[in-house]
Amino acid sequence: MSRISWDGYDAGVFRSRRSRLGRALGDLVALIPAGMPRPRNYPANVHPFRAESHYLYLFGVPIAGAMGVVDGERAVLFVPPPEADAALWYGAIPSGGEIAERAQVEVRPMDQLGQSISGRAVACVAVHDPVTDEAVRAAIGRRVDRDRLSPEDERLADAMVALRLIHDEAAIASIRRAAEATTMAHRAGRLATRPGRTEVEVRAAMETEIVARGMTVAYPSIVTVHGEVLHNEARLEVIGDDDLLLADVGAESADGWASDVTRTWPASGVLSKTQHAIYEVVLDAQRTAIAMVRPGVRYRDIHLAASRRIAEGLVALGLLRGDVGEIVADGVHALFFPHGVGHLLGLDVHDMEDLGDRAGYAPGRTRSEQFGLRYLRLDRDLAPGMAVTIEPGIYFVPAILDSPELAAVAGDRLVRSELARFADVRGIRIEDDVLCTTGEPEVITAAIPK
Amino acid sequence: MSRISWDGYDAGVFRSRRSRLGRALGDLVALIPAGMPRPRNYPANVHPFRAESHYLYLFGVPIAGAMGVVDGERAVLFVPPPEADAALWYGAIPSGGEIAERAQVEVRPMDQLGQSISGRAVACVAVHDPVTDEAVRAAIGRRVDRDRLSPEDERLADAMVALRLIHDEAAIASIRRAAEATTMAHRAGRLATRPGRTEVEVRAAMETEIVARGMTVAYPSIVTVHGEVLHNEARLEVIGDDDLLLADVGAESADGWASDVTRTWPASGVLSKTQHAIYEVVLDAQRTAIAMVRPGVRYRDIHLAASRRIAEGLVALGLLRGDVGEIVADGVHALFFPHGVGHLLGLDVHDMEDLGDRAGYAPGRTRSEQFGLRYLRLDRDLAPGMAVTIEPGIYFVPAILDSPELAAVAGDRLVRSELARFADVRGIRIEDDVLCTTGEPEVITAAIPK
Repeated sequence: MSRISWDGYDAGVFRSRRSRLGRALGDLVALIPAGMPRPRNYPANVHPFRAESHYLYLFGVPIAGAMGVVDGERAVLFVPPPEADAALWYGAIPSGGEIAERAQVEVRPMDQLGQSISGRAVACVAVHDPVTDEAVRAAIGRRVDRDRLSPEDERLADAMVALRLIHDEAAIASIRRAAEATTMAHRAGRLATRPGRTEVEVRAAMETEIVARGMTVAYPSIVTVHGEVLHNEARLEVIGDDDLLLADVGAESADGWASDVTRTWPASGVLSKTQHAIYEVVLDAQRTAIAMVRPGVRYRDIHLAASRRIAEGLVALGLLRGDVGEIVADGVHALFFPHGVGHLLGLDVHDMEDLGDRAGYAPGRTRSEQFGLRYLRLDRDLAPGMAVTIEPGIYFVPAILDSPELAAVAGDRLVRSELARFADVRGIRIEDDVLCTTGEPEVITAAIPK
Repeated sequence: MSRISWDGYDAGVFRSRRSRLGRALGDLVALIPAGMPRPRNYPANVHPFRAESHYLYLFGVPIAGAMGVVDGERAVLFVPPPEADAALWYGAIPSGGEIAERAQVEVRPMDQLGQSISGRAVACVAVHDPVTDEAVRAAIGRRVDRDRLSPEDERLADAMVALRLIHDEAAIASIRRAAEATTMAHRAGRLATRPGRTEVEVRAAMETEIVARGMTVAYPSIVTVHGEVLHNEARLEVIGDDDLLLADVGAESADGWASDVTRTWPASGVLSKTQHAIYEVVLDAQRTAIAMVRPGVRYRDIHLAASRRIAEGLVALGLLRGDVGEIVADGVHALFFPHGVGHLLGLDVHDMEDLGDRAGYAPGRTRSEQFGLRYLRLDRDLAPGMAVTIEPGIYFVPAILDSPELAAVAGDRLVRSELARFADVRGIRIEDDVLCTTGEPEVITAAIPK
């Protein structure tokens, strides 16, 4: 157990969220596990503890092994007994009474959980660690399987989605704090980049800004001269004179909220002519998409609008040819822009992805099977308080461009003879975090140069 | 799946280790899982993958979900099918043929594992992730439970301990590389420390040296002005003019080998008189202990010798009184030095702690029940090639000094009236990584100032 920091903890925020959940669920009791630290190489050497997002949303106090119960207007936090010698190794552990007072929630020992919910209809969110799984099974007499939710679990999942889709003021403030650290990281990364340095040196310069603010990265950083490898992790590769560096690095605030930002900059400080041409297409697509982040707009339409701008740009540069409408309808642009234009952002960098497409896709909407569109993680109508990323990109991915299946779709609309001319581009992505408001979209990460 | 780096990969090292294991096991087949990345907040957002240590020791190629089989002189690496679109997201994935050639091992698809070991006596090491657990169960028809090993599993565990206790040249070279990065981290930490900065700022300055070398921390860093909280993680606490900063930070080499170093330095650059007095006692105990790291010496005797030096120092300073031999025999010194003087070091920072005391305690030796001595993780006779930490410390831990039970043991040998005089000390630990050789002990981390 780590010490608990009460800095900035506002019990009213969590009470209000629990109360809204309780009202939504009526007689159904929600069991919300905090989860356990995950072992790294052996059980006692754990990754830094990060409580489960649903739990953080409702209780905010990261206590490993705790279980929150929300039952109408009543909430109880069940806490495990302290480890032997905990005070010796970890210093003074807050008592149940202190937690109760600070968090304004009833606190009870874990061994009272089973009896307190016995005979009630209980819903739970799935977790992914065997210790918590077993504790949940012991408490409610059944396992919670992410892939086969009970009707009760589905009601809870839907209620959590409804709550977490629309961020309250506290959530937005936390995302802003994460964005501030991310801003400093990206500025430091650009300053640290020069030919001859390695990718990991730039990554270190970026992450140190996040660590020094008491935060952590929200996801494994991507800092690479091979932007065309979409999930590349930073390595020892040396940055060359003519390389672009793609940096996808975001901080997570101390209370667990994510930011997610990508910038692509030239090692030399100056884009080549071809790099500049592609960069401008991506930036134009991003601006078009950001301007559409308004209430009532369907997110898939933003993706398609960005796709259209990319298709137009690629036609203008001679890499594609043909009718832009048909190119987008057939997904030919996805040979260069294979992923979605963005996703929900919140406590998770892909917010609520633990619930599958239940969060990202509105009821009745499902994923396309088309290459490109099928990777779109979000297809909802936007509403004020929703935070999304906007992150178009253009990549020259050998595995895609060499695919016979995709070549067949493209036909002669892909101008292969032009590809070599753009060999110094590899991959460019520009990503910001955008808040949907009642008026203009707010780019939370606007202070990061691009 | 991340890309595999073959930099520095020496197939002969792993072949030799497998061969020695195979010979030790005779007809028994060893199944060694690589393990899976651990989810952080949701299944797709994982902590950086760190393969299981036994697997890394024998195969060295970090492939998530792979299973190594050692069967006498024969070894097979069973690899999972690539994820859909893996080449798109992760770039070119090495083929089975490439892995086979580089690693000089037979590579086969995972779906052939069950059939290949069917009818054989199979031993396995316990892992701690549900996906791997289930894959092992599917392959061998039983679960491997860390707390109830089968006789076969026990034979495998004993054979792994015998191998991994004595480091080969490749292992020692990897520990040295980790120690080099750790050296740079500690130097940077000392330079970054000044009153007014926060603990996390110093931690960031240290970890960035490790990240920039393509490495990671071997365990969560402790960088704190509250050295008396033994497992304190760095926080936002501001470093005061008169504070000591305790930094327990170690790198893990790219191939998974740990270093583990603690230094304690004054924020002002100058130790106060009381800090200096305690520091010298700890340093003297450490020197005494390091000098004893020689073949045939029982590690518990090193612990007791360090304890005796600490007791003598505390008596000289007036914090304890009475007969030093009796103080150590009764564990009174453990009020100030409550933990063990060190532990095994290898692929795990507490090497092979996944096997419980099977690794740390020689057959027939068990943990003491005495406060202090019961935390000693190692009680073996040292041999050339064993790497251990030597890390005495003196702490003023309120939870210990206020314990009625421990006060009863100490009686009037604890001079409580003197405690207040040392209020600016809190906690001092000095830790190095030491290799037992046939001659003088080698302090692998000797380049770090103390």
